Amino acid sequence: MSVTFATGFSAAGVHAGISANTQRPDLALVVNHGPLDAAAGVFTANRFCAAPVQWTRDVVRDGHIKAVVLNSGGANACTGQAGLKQSEATAVKVAQTLTGDMQRGDDAAVVPIEEVAVCSTGLIGELLPLEHVLNGVELAASALGSDDQAGTDAANAILTTDTKPKTVRLSGSGYRVGGMVKGSGMIAPQLATMLCVITTDAVVDVEQLQSALTSAVSQSFNRIDVDGCMSTNDTVLLLASGASGVTPESDRFADLVRQACSDLARQIIGDGEGSTHDIVVTVSGADAEDAALACARAVAGSNLLKCAIYGNDPNWGRIVSSLGTVPVHVAAYEPTDVTVDINGVRVCEHGGAGVDRSEVKMDARQVDIHIDLHHGTAAATVLTNDLTHDYVHINADYES
Amino acid sequence: MSVTFATGFSAAGVHAGISANTQRPDLALVVNHGPLDAAAGVFTANRFCAAPVQWTRDVVRDGHIKAVVLNSGGANACTGQAGLKQSEATAVKVAQTLTGDMQRGDDAAVVPIEEVAVCSTGLIGELLPLEHVLNGVELAASALGSDDQAGTDAANAILTTDTKPKTVRLSGSGYRVGGMVKGSGMIAPQLATMLCVITTDAVVDVEQLQSALTSAVSQSFNRIDVDGCMSTNDTVLLLASGASGVTPESDRFADLVRQACSDLARQIIGDGEGSTHDIVVTVSGADAEDAALACARAVAGSNLLKCAIYGNDPNWGRIVSSLGTVPVHVAAYEPTDVTVDINGVRVCEHGGAGVDRSEVKMDARQVDIHIDLHHGTAAATVLTNDLTHDYVHINADYES
Repeated sequence: MSVTFATGFSAAGVHAGISANTQRPDLALVVNHGPLDAAAGVFTANRFCAAPVQWTRDVVRDGHIKAVVLNSGGANACTGQAGLKQSEATAVKVAQTLTGDMQRGDDAAVVPIEEVAVCSTGLIGELLPLEHVLNGVELAASALGSDDQAGTDAANAILTTDTKPKTVRLSGSGYRVGGMVKGSGMIAPQLATMLCVITTDAVVDVEQLQSALTSAVSQSFNRIDVDGCMSTNDTVLLLASGASGVTPESDRFADLVRQACSDLARQIIGDGEGSTHDIVVTVSGADAEDAALACARAVAGSNLLKCAIYGNDPNWGRIVSSLGTVPVHVAAYEPTDVTVDINGVRVCEHGGAGVDRSEVKMDARQVDIHIDLHHGTAAATVLTNDLTHDYVHINADYES
Repeated sequence: MSVTFATGFSAAGVHAGISANTQRPDLALVVNHGPLDAAAGVFTANRFCAAPVQWTRDVVRDGHIKAVVLNSGGANACTGQAGLKQSEATAVKVAQTLTGDMQRGDDAAVVPIEEVAVCSTGLIGELLPLEHVLNGVELAASALGSDDQAGTDAANAILTTDTKPKTVRLSGSGYRVGGMVKGSGMIAPQLATMLCVITTDAVVDVEQLQSALTSAVSQSFNRIDVDGCMSTNDTVLLLASGASGVTPESDRFADLVRQACSDLARQIIGDGEGSTHDIVVTVSGADAEDAALACARAVAGSNLLKCAIYGNDPNWGRIVSSLGTVPVHVAAYEPTDVTVDINGVRVCEHGGAGVDRSEVKMDARQVDIHIDLHHGTAAATVLTNDLTHDYVHINADYES
């Protein structure tokens, strides 16, 4: 499943001993066997981006990736030149190992160093135990498989504080899209918050891949709230093998990629650190999508609201006071026009009290907040989690 | 003390029964007996600003305030036209009561409605029990005094989740500046986060007052982190009676006002909801103060860092990953030049690991984080608190 759902890909997940504290698998390998090796990537905008991000951003620039190696147990971020050398050494090892493993004389089976992407996740500020990583690469190369289990193994090996693997598979007309993501809870930029690999056997070119991925990420991973913080390691890769021989209709393909990203993003929220509620904030009635999005982000980013939802309190005052911080030039509306529905109950009308909040049922995990600005027809949705004792616990004690 | 430290002012704090749940004093009155009645104000930028903010913003526009009435127990925010009528009715009652109490025939003793400021703090979205407020005004008017106790009573009557009153008094050459503030923890926009009244007996005109106040607020209350959220009710007023007869040197007066605001802002942080640490984030080496400020705000706003500090973990990775979210066009610097000192220990050097974090002592309440961008000479400091179990508890359960 996951990255092996599309044909033309093999994968593995092994225990390399990168973190001394766990017996969990911690190194994954994904190989594109072609015939195509087209690839696209989207990366964190954080200026302290990790060594593997710097490496992989260079690798994907020409639109070709043959293999991706991913490790948990260490982010290799803020590690300077030494960290960059580690990412490069890991890519070299993958290239050598795979090239040796594959049939000689077949040009396509040669894996050049500059077509190996590297992703890391874990603690910031420490170098990796490189010996363990390189041994892990050999282990993973010999464990490569293209069945469901191989994809699941890879999805498991990239987890950190995640409580479960997150994968997706979707079918187009004669081709497939599959993927895996690691998201250590919604708001954990200290860890490399999110690593994602999506594979397809459709016949698509690099421009089409990059355009589909950029659009999909902006509608999915960029609409789950990460507390205004970007991690140092966020990486989303989309690889095409072309093994199905099917050239998809362009819009339909972009749609599938968007669905895959949305599904995986939703799974990240569902596994948010310490969370007891998923919060879906939809703002409609805006005069532009950007305006709706800015409003939804402001509400989804409110610690006070997130605490209230944890307390099962449909506190609309905390919703409108967050909404009110969005400047007029970003989102035009009249405060006295605004309505707020929580789980279908109109608790705020004309910017003031509506139906009594005691009418709102808060038992379910999902809480739907719908804000209507009554100022236009554009809308946007942002997903977040509640802020809980367990979130504080996890993030106060993670080091120890 | 507090607002009665400067001559020419009287004050009172009484129990008006505005909140049914408490026997605490909940209504304060501050009266300027002149000869001047110059005033300046700074207000929340929240678009859902409360009725008393709308009222008082109009009142201060002409630069004259004779009395301020402040209540806890209800914010009168998001209460529409009915809420505005309540603020007006409260001002009317104050004007009538004070005018009746003061000597007739003395023009200066007449208190026009449009010179009465109104401030409210408490829950959003509910009207006040107006009867109780109006009765409270009568009680307070008959309790007015100009001694220390009267000032302390007023400072006590405006508290909500605060655990202690917050006051300041400073002396210039022949004149005085005093004040009180209510801050319900650092990040509590659901409550009317902050109400502040500062008084002086210096002879200063309205322009000078407003300029001193605007500058002081931008250097103090606007540099304590409120989680990107503004409350619906934030109000800072500066009143001058001129009773000392002393015209201060302009810069020196502005300095004193800034000191008063900084002292009160610092007290808000010291009483932050559920906090166990005060965090002082200083960014130096920037090419402009705005750049330094943007960086300091990004770091001070990180939930992950705030959780780490609660766990006594000097986690510099969470500092640089927050710093890295500030775009280049906002703050220019090279990540590899950045150093971070926590409580005097250089844990991050050249954007990577420095002295081992285990060297950092985290026992004291105050934690000093000093980030040097090594890119210029400008600096800025932002104060915040740690994020604790008690913060979540207070804000998840406040309603119940």
